[in-house]
Amino acid sequence: MNILESYSQHIEKEISTFSFPLKPANLYDPLRYFMTLGGKRMRPMLTLMSAKLFGKSMEESLHAAMSVELFHNFSLIHDDIMDEAPLRRAKETVHHKWNTNIAILSGDVLLVKAYEQISKNPPHLVPTLLNLFNQTAIEVCEGQQMDMDFETRSDVTSEEYIEMIRLKTSVLLGCALEMGAIIGETNENNRQLLYQFGVHLGIAFQIQDDLLDLYGIPEKVGKQVGGDVLANKKTLLSILAKNQANTTQLKQLIALESEKDDTRKIEETKILFEQLLIEVRCKEEMKKHHQIAMTALGQLKTERSAMELEQLAEFLFHREY
Amino acid sequence: MNILESYSQHIEKEISTFSFPLKPANLYDPLRYFMTLGGKRMRPMLTLMSAKLFGKSMEESLHAAMSVELFHNFSLIHDDIMDEAPLRRAKETVHHKWNTNIAILSGDVLLVKAYEQISKNPPHLVPTLLNLFNQTAIEVCEGQQMDMDFETRSDVTSEEYIEMIRLKTSVLLGCALEMGAIIGETNENNRQLLYQFGVHLGIAFQIQDDLLDLYGIPEKVGKQVGGDVLANKKTLLSILAKNQANTTQLKQLIALESEKDDTRKIEETKILFEQLLIEVRCKEEMKKHHQIAMTALGQLKTERSAMELEQLAEFLFHREY
Repeated sequence: MNILESYSQHIEKEISTFSFPLKPANLYDPLRYFMTLGGKRMRPMLTLMSAKLFGKSMEESLHAAMSVELFHNFSLIHDDIMDEAPLRRAKETVHHKWNTNIAILSGDVLLVKAYEQISKNPPHLVPTLLNLFNQTAIEVCEGQQMDMDFETRSDVTSEEYIEMIRLKTSVLLGCALEMGAIIGETNENNRQLLYQFGVHLGIAFQIQDDLLDLYGIPEKVGKQVGGDVLANKKTLLSILAKNQANTTQLKQLIALESEKDDTRKIEETKILFEQLLIEVRCKEEMKKHHQIAMTALGQLKTERSAMELEQLAEFLFHREY
Repeated sequence: MNILESYSQHIEKEISTFSFPLKPANLYDPLRYFMTLGGKRMRPMLTLMSAKLFGKSMEESLHAAMSVELFHNFSLIHDDIMDEAPLRRAKETVHHKWNTNIAILSGDVLLVKAYEQISKNPPHLVPTLLNLFNQTAIEVCEGQQMDMDFETRSDVTSEEYIEMIRLKTSVLLGCALEMGAIIGETNENNRQLLYQFGVHLGIAFQIQDDLLDLYGIPEKVGKQVGGDVLANKKTLLSILAKNQANTTQLKQLIALESEKDDTRKIEETKILFEQLLIEVRCKEEMKKHHQIAMTALGQLKTERSAMELEQLAEFLFHREY
């Protein structure tokens, strides 16, 4: 994955030299800490690759790429508070390492810092970038609220779940790609195709995450299998299972939610899921969105090849299976 | 105050017809609620008045005015969480009426909504408005962090305190006015003068607030006198007192912090403050900033008179004394 690594290194370098003010330390230290925790840097990579399709250098698209990465990290800091998560990427979350107030305020200023990156683009592109960024940011908040609302609902449909992940995670990938297209000053059609590629790639990727949590190979996934089942988390798997189950199966699924024996809980859930063809159905849904993404990519009309984006998509979908 | 009322009504009408989406209800209901709690709407009024100086109508400056008002409300929602405040304008705060997670996320989306208003201005003005807004938003966050940091410090100087209120509350007034000047497409000098007018008016106003809390007439101030003293709050008064006190007086001030009898606590603090000339010193500081503000206003070079802004400044400084 040499090409991806070269992008990734470029982004890491930019992030490591990104300078937050020294004071107030309680505002900016958490950001210095959080921004260097790592991550795939997939979103800024998408912006750089997209802009390159239209002949733009990394330097020319770096501010847009950074705006997306800073926004992503803002949303993680605030989501971690809401989820009461002690860890992120195996390190302490900001609200855990400092406190909730500091995490709220550092997150706020990070969101503004993302907008600051938008403002560093060529002035004639700023209004268009700002519009897209605003729309995306609003949708991400809406998705997060839907996710929180789902926790107390038992009638969530798979359509609602897909809509939630579209908003919470996928539109930002679409935005990252479309920003590259805006920097590249290409036509509306190419912009929309890249946005669609990103959104459906994101949905497919999220469904894959749900699948890997239960069906992935532990060593490759890098975490314990079945975590979502043990936490009674709403995923496409559990939602589809409840919607497809007959009365007996539904009772079993509900009973399993209070099962104390972890191994038994995972195994019996797997048996029920197999009866209900959950893995197959989820893979179908995942492939559907993957297909929409790749079709959109294929319809792009550019002088340069979209090979890098194809490679990235392939890389993302052959991680652990 | 007919002119002020006409502005105020215009803004209230805009806010009451400002439409947040219906869903997710838990994201937007808190904003519908909070935005109509009232308030002086001083900030958007400043933008409208400033733009009018350069011949711009309320319609032309309304988006900029709204951006400032939405930002202000975002910062209140998040500050109320951090301060654990149950009430705001005698009504329940968002985190108290709903919960902290909803208040964090509603605040986030409100900040984005403020940026959305920026993007609705004429495209050629958007980059300049965005730059100013970003800088201001960052400074407001820094001011809030300084304020939180001060809570656990006993060596805060009056200079640091003034810098904190400049950032936390005053730069937004400067921003509101400068935005009107940007909409009005006036020169850099007028822009800077209006910004300075706003910042120093804001500092003077905040010092006045500190003074009124202890020396105001209760019926006019609309709240119990001495609330800041009872809460051992850091204000310009208490900071100056500690810095000016001799060893005996300092001991008395510190002892008074744990005084349980409210009336006695306020009366004895007042006696010490009188010995230390605190009211006089604070009024001097207030007048200094008021003077800088009025001088800046006087240096404006515009075809129209700045009478409305003078009236507003006068109104603000003859509220309760």
